[in-house]
Amino acid sequence: MPDDALWGGRFAAPVHPAVQEFTNSLPFDRRLVRHDLLASLAHARMLRETEILAGSDSDLILSGLSEMLREVETGLEVEGPDEDVHTWIERTLVERVGDAGKRLHTARSRNDQTAVALRLYVRERLEDILSGVAGLQRVLTGQAASFRETFLPGYTHLQPGQPVSLAHHLLAHVASLGADAERLRAAHRLAGVSPLGAGALAGTSFPIDPARSAALLGLDRTFANSMHIVGDRDYVLDAAYACAMLSVHLSRWADEIVLWSTREFRFIELDDSVAQGSSIMPQKKNPEAAEILRGKSARAIGNVTALLALMKGLPLTFNSDFQEDKERLFDTLDTADWSLAAAIAVARGVNYRTDVMKAALGGGMLTATELADHLVRHGVPFRRAHHQVGEAVRLAEEGGVELWELDLETLRTCCPSAGDDVHEVLRPPAAVAAHDSPGGPAPGRVLEQLQEVDREVTALEAWLDGRTDPPIRRAHLEERLLDTLLT
Amino acid sequence: MPDDALWGGRFAAPVHPAVQEFTNSLPFDRRLVRHDLLASLAHARMLRETEILAGSDSDLILSGLSEMLREVETGLEVEGPDEDVHTWIERTLVERVGDAGKRLHTARSRNDQTAVALRLYVRERLEDILSGVAGLQRVLTGQAASFRETFLPGYTHLQPGQPVSLAHHLLAHVASLGADAERLRAAHRLAGVSPLGAGALAGTSFPIDPARSAALLGLDRTFANSMHIVGDRDYVLDAAYACAMLSVHLSRWADEIVLWSTREFRFIELDDSVAQGSSIMPQKKNPEAAEILRGKSARAIGNVTALLALMKGLPLTFNSDFQEDKERLFDTLDTADWSLAAAIAVARGVNYRTDVMKAALGGGMLTATELADHLVRHGVPFRRAHHQVGEAVRLAEEGGVELWELDLETLRTCCPSAGDDVHEVLRPPAAVAAHDSPGGPAPGRVLEQLQEVDREVTALEAWLDGRTDPPIRRAHLEERLLDTLLT
Amino acid sequence: MPDDALWGGRFAAPVHPAVQEFTNSLPFDRRLVRHDLLASLAHARMLRETEILAGSDSDLILSGLSEMLREVETGLEVEGPDEDVHTWIERTLVERVGDAGKRLHTARSRNDQTAVALRLYVRERLEDILSGVAGLQRVLTGQAASFRETFLPGYTHLQPGQPVSLAHHLLAHVASLGADAERLRAAHRLAGVSPLGAGALAGTSFPIDPARSAALLGLDRTFANSMHIVGDRDYVLDAAYACAMLSVHLSRWADEIVLWSTREFRFIELDDSVAQGSSIMPQKKNPEAAEILRGKSARAIGNVTALLALMKGLPLTFNSDFQEDKERLFDTLDTADWSLAAAIAVARGVNYRTDVMKAALGGGMLTATELADHLVRHGVPFRRAHHQVGEAVRLAEEGGVELWELDLETLRTCCPSAGDDVHEVLRPPAAVAAHDSPGGPAPGRVLEQLQEVDREVTALEAWLDGRTDPPIRRAHLEERLLDTLLT
Amino acid sequence: MPDDALWGGRFAAPVHPAVQEFTNSLPFDRRLVRHDLLASLAHARMLRETEILAGSDSDLILSGLSEMLREVETGLEVEGPDEDVHTWIERTLVERVGDAGKRLHTARSRNDQTAVALRLYVRERLEDILSGVAGLQRVLTGQAASFRETFLPGYTHLQPGQPVSLAHHLLAHVASLGADAERLRAAHRLAGVSPLGAGALAGTSFPIDPARSAALLGLDRTFANSMHIVGDRDYVLDAAYACAMLSVHLSRWADEIVLWSTREFRFIELDDSVAQGSSIMPQKKNPEAAEILRGKSARAIGNVTALLALMKGLPLTFNSDFQEDKERLFDTLDTADWSLAAAIAVARGVNYRTDVMKAALGGGMLTATELADHLVRHGVPFRRAHHQVGEAVRLAEEGGVELWELDLETLRTCCPSAGDDVHEVLRPPAAVAAHDSPGGPAPGRVLEQLQEVDREVTALEAWLDGRTDPPIRRAHLEERLLDTLLT
Repeated sequence: MPDDALWGGRFAAPVHPAVQEFTNSLPFDRRLVRHDLLASLAHARMLRETEILAGSDSDLILSGLSEMLREVETGLEVEGPDEDVHTWIERTLVERVGDAGKRLHTARSRNDQTAVALRLYVRERLEDILSGVAGLQRVLTGQAASFRETFLPGYTHLQPGQPVSLAHHLLAHVASLGADAERLRAAHRLAGVSPLGAGALAGTSFPIDPARSAALLGLDRTFANSMHIVGDRDYVLDAAYACAMLSVHLSRWADEIVLWSTREFRFIELDDSVAQGSSIMPQKKNPEAAEILRGKSARAIGNVTALLALMKGLPLTFNSDFQEDKERLFDTLDTADWSLAAAIAVARGVNYRTDVMKAALGGGMLTATELADHLVRHGVPFRRAHHQVGEAVRLAEEGGVELWELDLETLRTCCPSAGDDVHEVLRPPAAVAAHDSPGGPAPGRVLEQLQEVDREVTALEAWLDGRTDPPIRRAHLEERLLDTLLT
Repeated sequence: MPDDALWGGRFAAPVHPAVQEFTNSLPFDRRLVRHDLLASLAHARMLRETEILAGSDSDLILSGLSEMLREVETGLEVEGPDEDVHTWIERTLVERVGDAGKRLHTARSRNDQTAVALRLYVRERLEDILSGVAGLQRVLTGQAASFRETFLPGYTHLQPGQPVSLAHHLLAHVASLGADAERLRAAHRLAGVSPLGAGALAGTSFPIDPARSAALLGLDRTFANSMHIVGDRDYVLDAAYACAMLSVHLSRWADEIVLWSTREFRFIELDDSVAQGSSIMPQKKNPEAAEILRGKSARAIGNVTALLALMKGLPLTFNSDFQEDKERLFDTLDTADWSLAAAIAVARGVNYRTDVMKAALGGGMLTATELADHLVRHGVPFRRAHHQVGEAVRLAEEGGVELWELDLETLRTCCPSAGDDVHEVLRPPAAVAAHDSPGGPAPGRVLEQLQEVDREVTALEAWLDGRTDPPIRRAHLEERLLDTLLT
Repeated sequence: MPDDALWGGRFAAPVHPAVQEFTNSLPFDRRLVRHDLLASLAHARMLRETEILAGSDSDLILSGLSEMLREVETGLEVEGPDEDVHTWIERTLVERVGDAGKRLHTARSRNDQTAVALRLYVRERLEDILSGVAGLQRVLTGQAASFRETFLPGYTHLQPGQPVSLAHHLLAHVASLGADAERLRAAHRLAGVSPLGAGALAGTSFPIDPARSAALLGLDRTFANSMHIVGDRDYVLDAAYACAMLSVHLSRWADEIVLWSTREFRFIELDDSVAQGSSIMPQKKNPEAAEILRGKSARAIGNVTALLALMKGLPLTFNSDFQEDKERLFDTLDTADWSLAAAIAVARGVNYRTDVMKAALGGGMLTATELADHLVRHGVPFRRAHHQVGEAVRLAEEGGVELWELDLETLRTCCPSAGDDVHEVLRPPAAVAAHDSPGGPAPGRVLEQLQEVDREVTALEAWLDGRTDPPIRRAHLEERLLDTLLT
Repeated sequence: MPDDALWGGRFAAPVHPAVQEFTNSLPFDRRLVRHDLLASLAHARMLRETEILAGSDSDLILSGLSEMLREVETGLEVEGPDEDVHTWIERTLVERVGDAGKRLHTARSRNDQTAVALRLYVRERLEDILSGVAGLQRVLTGQAASFRETFLPGYTHLQPGQPVSLAHHLLAHVASLGADAERLRAAHRLAGVSPLGAGALAGTSFPIDPARSAALLGLDRTFANSMHIVGDRDYVLDAAYACAMLSVHLSRWADEIVLWSTREFRFIELDDSVAQGSSIMPQKKNPEAAEILRGKSARAIGNVTALLALMKGLPLTFNSDFQEDKERLFDTLDTADWSLAAAIAVARGVNYRTDVMKAALGGGMLTATELADHLVRHGVPFRRAHHQVGEAVRLAEEGGVELWELDLETLRTCCPSAGDDVHEVLRPPAAVAAHDSPGGPAPGRVLEQLQEVDREVTALEAWLDGRTDPPIRRAHLEERLLDTLLT
């Protein structure tokens, strides 16, 4: 008979060692120990307030749990023969406070217990990640502010397209991060439903107050349907997906770091502190952190896939397959968190070679579109102008000159409507300045963007600053778990 | 030189046939023809209002596009040598209205053009899908309303756990669908950013009014950064992910249909109209639609994976890899849409065998937890009560009787604190009624749920009803494209 | 009652239209019509030889099926109200030959029928794909043969590492394709098991001869276990995985095409016939086919994922979820096939800029490793030599010179053991020649590679040439289906 | 300047802590320490034999490495400030044997070094997994041998189809495992190419003997192209895919365990030692190990996806993204290994309820196909027979009787050709016996299968037994690393 388990009355044989090792989740779910202790405190406090537990029992439980929490926060290792962290907590509590501890599980099941701890954990980690997103936005935005009048080619298909400013380019990445922040906050919101009180699947016959335990944990809402909530892992999936999107966005930026630090592009030089060398080729300076950042997105993609495949076709309510969600989730959250820290360090270590960027404005016929638009202003239908300019480009390429170096006469052999002032629009800086449409690269527009991004990031930071410990944690810190707790 | 293409001035050779076939997107992006025509109408109208185009030209363009839209809506096939639907539209327009048509592409690129059409398409399809979600919620909720006092075992791990009502069980699926509706609406919102005016990547030097074309299309917002928006496919990913989550939820319900219609469970019988037979075994009645519904989720999972992998590591702005997003997206949207239609038909074809459910309340020791809770009320710590009841279960199983058939004396051999009234709590109907905690299965609680779901679905239906044609479409229908258009 | 279906005797209502549309597979499984007709011919022939069918019936069936095959091969459309292609075949046969046609399904089920058709289809398509692999290997190998003494930097981490020859570089891609060929042939082999005779799941009581129908179809083996084989889709998965690996390999080559055709690398110029232009920027020449090739790998990855997720957790034998395997498989096979055709065209359209490659040999300190190895030969431990050369590199970079431009005296300030002949090893061509280890870039070694690859590709081509029509198809073509058929 | 790194001569600043933590692979690649030490021994030995290293140096290196290997094998922890296990090895060696240790990296790079260690690791783990596959095949085959005449319904679509034997059913799972063994062995073969000698990407100018180091490591082949082999991770992917397929097969079996142990199916009862209880519901006995086994396949699927996405679009040769392959691979190999151990334990803990299976032969009209085949033998075309039997089934269902309980007269109302002996074929045991086609369920056929499987598993076991330590490991164990080593 399993002795250490929370069950066993009807079992006639201990668990087979291979099965025990295979199903044991303590090695990874011990991460949730703080969150389960908080939830257990809230549950016990609610049981006391509703008088489901006698005050004497709940006092012992609350002080026991609080003591355990203090020790865990100061380094107590969660180790033992227990099949999961929830079992460890109950066993340890009983060892410390005796029979009272055996009353903690009243009106609760591991199904709602696990879920509430995981939800608290997800929220905490998402807050960290959001803080990293804001940090990276700040670094890139700060750089952008200096480069509103630094011009370089904008590329599509990795071919030079039209001139833009470095500020505008960097803010494109910042915009992606802004969408990530939205997505992460939505996942945070979804995780804020308290499942406590759902029991195994069918609620309970005790007169519990789920709204109270939710409030003690700082959770916004309670569940609508007990069978749904114990089998719901949407919040895990949404968090994993939001992080995967973030990782994919970071991979696009990281790929740019790798590309721009090639000898051929040379738009940036990485500080020695964010590059690494080769064991054999002494001259190498490799953008390893950026490459790994790019690679990490594959891991995040695989984890979303795994979680979706995990949930597919499972029966309602709880199945042990759910145990598999944790490692994939933790791996994704760690990946997002660490990737942001590394990305911030790498971003700070980027030296922009504005001279190289400036030089790159030549040779790419970057203002061909300006020429076409000039012709349009002189009455040529755009599509015809486009064809005429295509021929001008061929002429310039054959002559080995820039478009603006073609004299007016030559230009007019293919673009007969070109005005006398045509050369003015063909210089890249003038072209950027002229692209003064909303959301465009003209310096004034970029200033607007910078101001808007600042507003958004400031709002995010304010939200993060406003996140506080849940009431039950404050009560624990202030040692007033047994007092009336006004929220 | 490519003749039919929108480009080619600088090209000295036609596209290789194998490359042409490989890169041609007309076979699948012609789905977007209506949406591109609407966006082109809005673009042309904006060009006219901002006087970038002369009235005479824009009048020709607007009436030409409107005529094409009318024909497309009444069956005109989009076919031709064109490399994509956008080329088809411009070529056809020029064939019809001459040189004026060559002016349509002023201040526009295929990069913003494609994106706006795709965003309009995504929104339209998400509305259809949301309507299907509401429809399925209505069917299941309608059934639930009849079964508040129909009881059956609630399972965890596919083992009988505690008694619940069929209504409560069905509403658990409805709750998942509610989360899907939230997710789909968030994706719809994200798709509502108009990229028109971003050009190829750098805006334009024409004095465009992006807010105006957005408003004409019924889109909520314009973009912040032109380089970001032409390379942004987050709205495709979010839509695909929201649909994949929906598919996974449907797969869980479908698996239940398969399981419950087995000869062994028999909780339901499928109407002949939603089951199919075997080519060789004459007695078979297979739940094929439910199985395929389950299988469809794999397709949706694969599509999310493909889209994430597609975007990984791509350079900023537009790359032709993006062309690959459409078929994956279309496939996912179709899958979601058709799956909901099939699910509604199947759900309507389910005959619940309430007699079998009632019979299943015996034999599973379903009220063992009630017995433990009873002991708790008589002062036994829960964990000890749990172990005592475990032994009572073993006794009952060995005796081949129900828990409630054990006489008090026998019961007290393992549960000494059992009260005289213990048998009362052990009957399943009483147990369900006692589970009167918020979100629990007691009939009164389920009534609250039904009312809450009704409010939510009604709100969703109202939102869907409130969706109207974008202003430019209304103008098209009312043939007042050239008039002042007040929005 | 379903009239057109192969079943229905026990059904009291027709299939609901939404379900019918949802479950109908004719729109995509009609691709299998030729393969099913061949398998049906083989089945009928076997029934005749085993005298399970009377000669008069089987003669009608064989000539009916043969006629249908002839018409299908010359353009007959497979259309109708049928739920799948198998139903279409039986219905059409009965319309043509009457009651005899109703005997075709003797000792057969759709479960083994579908599987055998799909296996034949997979093998045929894999042969096409293998032929494409050989074709691309030939193009790249042909180019490599010309470039054994054309040198360029070899990169790791996209940073210049050591000089190599273009031939050696190209042959690296050829080696990946060689591994793909192995994998594709293994998938082809696995698909060569005939499931005919497994029936629905339990074989049959008729005295069939599965080895005979397998032999008529040119399949190598018969199945070991009837329940396994009807639920086995390993051959679908293995084919999809082998194609995904091929796609990933092509994506790596395609990414190189994109990169090398940037203005910054310029190692290649694409022929105008394999590049495309921009709708707005007249100067653009975009490597679209290469980008799409890169993007296609995402599709192939998603399909493998979908297929794995599809099979997860399904009950033994046949489930309708399997119907979902076809579109994912077809999509993958098409992708592989078309990608190879496009890749061959693109590869042929690559113009290698050997002048640019030669120029790129300077400036990257490419022979730093040679310097370290030189020091090792003069007794310096490698790790110390590596550090010394690191300093020499820094000196050269600061002086803006190549390593080989540092005079001996300067060099010896950090590399005191440098020999008088040190400059000889530092020239890139000499370095390549010196790298004469097996599998290395020295011209002689590359010649060995070329010869070995030629042997491999020749063997693959011979195997492909040796593939012949299965006996039943030859009999069909020679109109001797009723004669003794010697194989 | 990085002091502990293998590089750094050209670097002016230490690595940023966030980057160092992000890029450090020691926490996971230390798993490879034994394999790298073996490969380093082989490399050093080859350097000695080719006289690239002086005997005095190589003697120190070989004895130093051998000592480290001995200590690692007896518990030495791999810990330190090193960026990876390869750096740890070289640093530790130099600490122990001084300057000679700095010569170990002669003619080697981390690129070939990492790859060879990983290949050795993959092969070792695949052998373990193959051993697990054989073990599970033995357990299931052993059970099958007892149940050749135990009959139960065979299901398709989870609906009763035709009667089969339990032996036949179990052997279907064994057949899947046989295909897994093939796939795992192919992956093992592919991993058997030695990359040693490829250097960073371009081989080396030292007169190395790659065939010799390969032979010392027991690897079958050397590489063809140095640039290919350092960027090749096909062997990682193939191993991960083969394990994912195995996991998916196990998930199908595990799902059956879950299903068959439901109260409704009851075809099996799990031993208490392989089931687990509930923290709240005392009566529960949950098949948790089987559920987790099912869930594990999702993890394996995600890992394949991640690896494919990781490789997509990467430049030739080595990129740091590759560092990400290890954790996904290790996770997959662990999952496969542990899953097999758990599966073997669970399989042994299954008690087959042959009484329940027998009872289940009634009520499912399992022999309807037999009736149709009987009619065929009496001259009715199969399709017509199928329809007639469908009606008979309806009659029997309405009458609440088995098909064989319909009297001849009633039967003939829908099946007029039924012979007088028709009832004989309708008994399930007779039906199984009659299904005597090759690969079918008749007891004699199953005996053939058992014999064939025994041959296959015996061959696999013999291959596994024949796997020996590579020569260099034997030399290490026998302390004759410096002697002539004949292989």
